[in-house]
Amino acid sequence: MFSYSLNLDPQSRVPMYEQLYAAVAGAIREGALHHGEKLPSKRELCARLGVSRSTVEAAYELLLAEGYVESRPRSGYYVAEYETTAISEAPSSAPVCAPGHLPPRGKALDSPFSTSAVDVSRFPYASWAKLYREVVYNSPELLQRGEAQGEAPLREALARLLREYRGVQCGPEQVVVGAGLETLTDQLITLFGPEAVYAVEDPGYPALVRLLQARGRAVRFVPMDAAGMDPEALERSGAAAAYLTPSHQFPLGITMPASRRSRLLRWAAEGERWIIEDDYDSEFRYGGRPISSMQGMDRHGRVIYAGTFSRSLAPAIRLAYLVLPPPLLERWQRQFGRQQSTVSRYEQRVMARFLDEGYYARYLRRVGKLYADRRSALVSALAELEGASVSGADGGIHFLLTLPRYGEDELLRRAAAAGLPLRGLSEFCHETAPLPSTLVLGYGGLPTEQVPEAAARLRAAWEGTSGPLRCIAAEKA
Amino acid sequence: MFSYSLNLDPQSRVPMYEQLYAAVAGAIREGALHHGEKLPSKRELCARLGVSRSTVEAAYELLLAEGYVESRPRSGYYVAEYETTAISEAPSSAPVCAPGHLPPRGKALDSPFSTSAVDVSRFPYASWAKLYREVVYNSPELLQRGEAQGEAPLREALARLLREYRGVQCGPEQVVVGAGLETLTDQLITLFGPEAVYAVEDPGYPALVRLLQARGRAVRFVPMDAAGMDPEALERSGAAAAYLTPSHQFPLGITMPASRRSRLLRWAAEGERWIIEDDYDSEFRYGGRPISSMQGMDRHGRVIYAGTFSRSLAPAIRLAYLVLPPPLLERWQRQFGRQQSTVSRYEQRVMARFLDEGYYARYLRRVGKLYADRRSALVSALAELEGASVSGADGGIHFLLTLPRYGEDELLRRAAAAGLPLRGLSEFCHETAPLPSTLVLGYGGLPTEQVPEAAARLRAAWEGTSGPLRCIAAEKA
Repeated sequence: MFSYSLNLDPQSRVPMYEQLYAAVAGAIREGALHHGEKLPSKRELCARLGVSRSTVEAAYELLLAEGYVESRPRSGYYVAEYETTAISEAPSSAPVCAPGHLPPRGKALDSPFSTSAVDVSRFPYASWAKLYREVVYNSPELLQRGEAQGEAPLREALARLLREYRGVQCGPEQVVVGAGLETLTDQLITLFGPEAVYAVEDPGYPALVRLLQARGRAVRFVPMDAAGMDPEALERSGAAAAYLTPSHQFPLGITMPASRRSRLLRWAAEGERWIIEDDYDSEFRYGGRPISSMQGMDRHGRVIYAGTFSRSLAPAIRLAYLVLPPPLLERWQRQFGRQQSTVSRYEQRVMARFLDEGYYARYLRRVGKLYADRRSALVSALAELEGASVSGADGGIHFLLTLPRYGEDELLRRAAAAGLPLRGLSEFCHETAPLPSTLVLGYGGLPTEQVPEAAARLRAAWEGTSGPLRCIAAEKA
Repeated sequence: MFSYSLNLDPQSRVPMYEQLYAAVAGAIREGALHHGEKLPSKRELCARLGVSRSTVEAAYELLLAEGYVESRPRSGYYVAEYETTAISEAPSSAPVCAPGHLPPRGKALDSPFSTSAVDVSRFPYASWAKLYREVVYNSPELLQRGEAQGEAPLREALARLLREYRGVQCGPEQVVVGAGLETLTDQLITLFGPEAVYAVEDPGYPALVRLLQARGRAVRFVPMDAAGMDPEALERSGAAAAYLTPSHQFPLGITMPASRRSRLLRWAAEGERWIIEDDYDSEFRYGGRPISSMQGMDRHGRVIYAGTFSRSLAPAIRLAYLVLPPPLLERWQRQFGRQQSTVSRYEQRVMARFLDEGYYARYLRRVGKLYADRRSALVSALAELEGASVSGADGGIHFLLTLPRYGEDELLRRAAAAGLPLRGLSEFCHETAPLPSTLVLGYGGLPTEQVPEAAARLRAAWEGTSGPLRCIAAEKA
């Protein structure tokens, strides 16, 4: 039941719309307002609270943006489902993306199937800006030089997060923060010296190979089998370090089973080699039990754990982290301990509070539901394609689509002609042969309500359907 | 004359204290309130405007922090001098630093004479936070991947700033933004390849040498004469690139004269070599004509201009920039054009507005006055030391102090024992012999009101004065 006794204070340093937003959000969090309850109309709220229309509009805008309420056309605002513990399977019925349309046919815009796009429509920007303001106001000392490894409160928050969610064994003193995973990987490469040989997954992440080669490092491409990097080929490679994406391999989407993890850990322990565990896409799982990190299984201190907020939060948040085993930490401190961190101290502190105060966990639940919903819609729609098979879709925000009807080139050519440029698996293969007729589809940048049209357009391109596009999701409903 | 008709709107999205702050700041900028005018007391303002005490306090706090008003003890708030065009020679009479005291004797805290400290007491944090909030609220698209070189509006603002203030010839397309000068220098080193030999100033900046050596690059230490890097020694070094700090050499404080600049530019042009012009400390000049950049004198595209906001604004603002000559720009794009910028897009946009809307220019004027004042006080106080000479004090926020009475070690030992750890020149000398008995003193972290005590303490340490400390500035007043 909505209460109008909200104790708003027009004299406060906090703007009125933020007070109103905070009061309603608090009532929802505390269960005073329940899922499905209708909120007062804007007009009613203005009249009853004696506040301006712009105050109410701004507050409702925030509540919508942060997922507390949802808007039903021609009806009003309703309390959204508010999860406090586990991920619910129920898809959100709120609008999922900023308005927008698929690019017109034939125009080479960024594809809605881009593998690097991320849905940021639900990013809690009001909370982020609020935290930033509070950090700036309350901490003038943050303008001075900070710690090279990163701000202590952020390293503490990250260590807690990683212990709790990923089973990483670490203390805050092992965490190193940097402006993106490339920056941090570059530091690791420096620590390992110019002679170290690197094993990389093939197919794999092209930016990693570019970085290693730019630094003049020797790279060995190690083939993958169904469980991940081939241990015998790895053994033969003579590498001193292997870069792995065990949670959701890019691009194959493999989640490395525990047996393969322990096999690769043995390789590292036996030869005093290193594993760089890039815990790419571990934040989003749609089925099966999440497997904890390799770092958490390691008993010999051979794993460097690496993570980033670029995909779980937003590409523009330039904040990634490493967890270093103690001996490597010492080397890091000798080499980089006198440099400044590459990340703004302000944004580091904002992120610390974002983690500590539960914003991040709430956001991951919201965006996780969004992706789960979108993935189901897209996989079902694509399953209608004759002979199609999908793999690697248990987690993350991309998967493989194999369509034996045409070769990869023809699939790509037809999709691009239909205004939907895609990427083929062969683009990511260095020395191994790609699976034939296989594409890598990302869905982070594809608004869920546009899935039917996008899928129908691909279907028309590949199956030669002419006439009006069929809307697959509508048919199924 | 202060007007109480301020049109404050309690219903606005802008908090009341910000409205009040903006109204008063606007009146000062527009000349409706003049230097020296007394503002109403807080109590009076509360009563007349019908706003809360906390609103008035917050507004006055901002006005103080941003230098619009000054507080006189037991008297009230007065309009500060507001400069709209040139730098005034009149020292500000406002309090200059956050409260604080010199560290107790014998405790090895950061020295008030640290060469890396910067005075951030006047940082316009309210404006910075306000801009950040506006950027976040108005630009949801900034969460997606940004341009590798940096945000276009920031590159435009930087190009304008550098053309106007430093005579740099460039367009925004030549600007590359990164998280600190080390990050960007590291990129340059990569572009120049593993075989390039680097000439560095000796004495010079130690972090540069560490970076080059960490990357396995060949380093040649080139001695300095009174005009800067010795051109003949540079010629003999066989270097392909020279890293220079011509505006205010670190640590010698030399401002390189135009004749030496053109001699070194000839060296670069003749051999198709590179000059990296680190325009360190160019923001603060206390006498003599500022010399425009070497980049602006260069007719052969051999200079890479490099700058940072770490010293002019705050060490925590991780934002530096390069201006690349077009052929190098192409190489940069091939090598790094697919990476993401290392700087938060939000903070890039904030900085763009900070530059465009005049905040930066106003801040530089305020902090420039502060440093000018402090430098005069410190240099006069140190001149009382028998046989002392100061050099390199025409710009920046450090200088050399030579005191032939003792050797460097003894000077350092006695200062440290007095609780004022200092750095000796020899620490920065690689292959050249340091000037004897010479120290490098920074004053960015030394509050002006503490200059007399700090100078007196040094004097006591070096001249063996016992008894009560003499307060030199007080004597002179």
